[in-house]
Amino acid sequence: MSELVLREDTDHMARLTLNSPSNFNALSLEMIDALSDAFRAIEADDNIRVVILAAEGKAFSAGHDLRQMQAARGNEDAGRAAYDQLFGRCAGMMQMIPALPQPVIAEVQGIATAAGCQLVASCDLAVAAEGVRFGVNGVNIGLFCSTPMVALTRAVPPKAAFEMLTTGEFILAERARELGLINRVVPADQLTDATMEMARVIASKLPSAVRMGKRAFHEQLRLGLSAAYDNAGATMCENMMLPDTDEGINAFLEKREPNWN
Amino acid sequence: MSELVLREDTDHMARLTLNSPSNFNALSLEMIDALSDAFRAIEADDNIRVVILAAEGKAFSAGHDLRQMQAARGNEDAGRAAYDQLFGRCAGMMQMIPALPQPVIAEVQGIATAAGCQLVASCDLAVAAEGVRFGVNGVNIGLFCSTPMVALTRAVPPKAAFEMLTTGEFILAERARELGLINRVVPADQLTDATMEMARVIASKLPSAVRMGKRAFHEQLRLGLSAAYDNAGATMCENMMLPDTDEGINAFLEKREPNWN
Amino acid sequence: MSELVLREDTDHMARLTLNSPSNFNALSLEMIDALSDAFRAIEADDNIRVVILAAEGKAFSAGHDLRQMQAARGNEDAGRAAYDQLFGRCAGMMQMIPALPQPVIAEVQGIATAAGCQLVASCDLAVAAEGVRFGVNGVNIGLFCSTPMVALTRAVPPKAAFEMLTTGEFILAERARELGLINRVVPADQLTDATMEMARVIASKLPSAVRMGKRAFHEQLRLGLSAAYDNAGATMCENMMLPDTDEGINAFLEKREPNWN
Repeated sequence: MSELVLREDTDHMARLTLNSPSNFNALSLEMIDALSDAFRAIEADDNIRVVILAAEGKAFSAGHDLRQMQAARGNEDAGRAAYDQLFGRCAGMMQMIPALPQPVIAEVQGIATAAGCQLVASCDLAVAAEGVRFGVNGVNIGLFCSTPMVALTRAVPPKAAFEMLTTGEFILAERARELGLINRVVPADQLTDATMEMARVIASKLPSAVRMGKRAFHEQLRLGLSAAYDNAGATMCENMMLPDTDEGINAFLEKREPNWN
Repeated sequence: MSELVLREDTDHMARLTLNSPSNFNALSLEMIDALSDAFRAIEADDNIRVVILAAEGKAFSAGHDLRQMQAARGNEDAGRAAYDQLFGRCAGMMQMIPALPQPVIAEVQGIATAAGCQLVASCDLAVAAEGVRFGVNGVNIGLFCSTPMVALTRAVPPKAAFEMLTTGEFILAERARELGLINRVVPADQLTDATMEMARVIASKLPSAVRMGKRAFHEQLRLGLSAAYDNAGATMCENMMLPDTDEGINAFLEKREPNWN
Repeated sequence: MSELVLREDTDHMARLTLNSPSNFNALSLEMIDALSDAFRAIEADDNIRVVILAAEGKAFSAGHDLRQMQAARGNEDAGRAAYDQLFGRCAGMMQMIPALPQPVIAEVQGIATAAGCQLVASCDLAVAAEGVRFGVNGVNIGLFCSTPMVALTRAVPPKAAFEMLTTGEFILAERARELGLINRVVPADQLTDATMEMARVIASKLPSAVRMGKRAFHEQLRLGLSAAYDNAGATMCENMMLPDTDEGINAFLEKREPNWN
């Protein structure tokens, strides 16, 4: 894996760190590929139960790499194929997050803007430091944040999303929590501790149950009520058939800790 | 009807009470059937205009009956058919609530966990006492709350739902109101009064208009904008053709009380 | 255009004012047609970048014109065709707002009830004065607000919408902001200034990017994740190919103001 994304594993938790602070962790094609590679490796790693997506430096991520994008304007087609590839590959990476079997928690410091805000919105969960600013401010430079909008409008109410997209204005962490974009706001010096604590809680659960649950979560989200219940009911049955779930329920009824494999 | 669910009617309001406090109103197969029977009776009762779903004891409901579920593991198929039946019948009962012609208000005390939290989320409206705790905490014993998730994710923003489902942590009534899971939070000693007051307000409206409106509410909820307007517009026309609506509008224009049949 | 709706243009902003204070800006057939005409004119006006929808008098709008509706009861069909036409034409007008290429901001004073509340919910953005009351209170007179419900349930969480619809009770501006119905609450004497300031911010952005973005916003809103990304990705490519976007990005990288045509 490229050094653009660092990975550190501890106790069934994979901590990924965006490691390009000099350009505010811009989502260059290389960064997108490095993230995709990291997600692919984790997807196949049965030892990992939860993923933390953190970042180095003053910004979580400031979005796409504008210099790289502008360089493509010299191409024969004025960049069209390069942009098509960039946005396609970026959207593919973003969609890998809900598709991963493990829950993914964003740990957000500094600012998260444009595709950087999209990355936070695409994670299953997010913890942010007090004072963190979120924006989908591409409109300020003439590039409406249409792809970040996809993730944003699936996390927050439509009028709030529309305001961020058309005014380019930032919102602070506390407002982001009110709106549903993030889960928790903590003092900056407790950010990593708070995120890792949430990760540890999730990693302590029965991994197969969490995997089934995450898959069902995303599968049922946009179905009609009856189809959603068919899907979720089948998942409940599969979950009940796990020997570890048998043990988990027995342990609860016997008021003892479960002895899971 | 079984004594597992009590019913008391006053002034066009049916008050159902989960009456199995010794097992925290567990949603056993018998309780699910008793609730289904109660809903079926109310569905056919033109005298009833609103339903209150309350509970006896320290908990609103703690979800499925784990002892009953574990007992089925001795079956030839290790319980699979029993679980399939249980989750199917439970999902059917939950879906009867939005399908009922009358609005259903949950009156929530103590705790509402797993399928108990699903029951609250499935009601059209909910009032809770201060300090009530809500959770979809099956993950703590290795059984991810996949079916409760269906109702929960249709009531609250996705990241908040995902956090509850994967951490197993509780939220308090005030946070549940912020998220949209419940409508009102009141001091514990005013819970029944506040719920019954909300019920009385709804029962004072024109019943046929409320019935049309509730049906249209659920029909249009997941349609595209144009199809939703076609549906709702047809409902408005039907509503306007009611003689009692004619009288209601005239009374308003003449600044007097309507004289409804 | 009828004097029922006034239009004043300044600096690429079209300010529409509902001008029937004597009947609380009732959405009569004439008012609906005047609004539709105004929207149609703005749709074709490339000079306009943002629309403000304000109102004269003590109410933003109190909804449909009940006297006009009651008058149709004397028709041969007891009004059915007239109601069908009214609700159809009104729903058409409401749907013109998201379909307009320019963002539309509601500037809300006094009260916004029934179809008046629907009008606020249908706008892309809304600013309200402190103390403004919102309601979908048709149920009080026997006419459930089924069409207003379509716009309301696409702006706020379902249980909150259901409460407003079935109890007929009002909510205040601050609660409306919490729920997502409006974007900002300001003191009454700053309402127009605050709304026009939001409009100016949006009008200062690259108009072609805002137009692309608004179209994509509504197109992707109810699509599945993958289809939504296909749509938004194509919009991003088109946006990148604009010469003004090239200039906007260069200006940002060179830390200067863009020189847009």
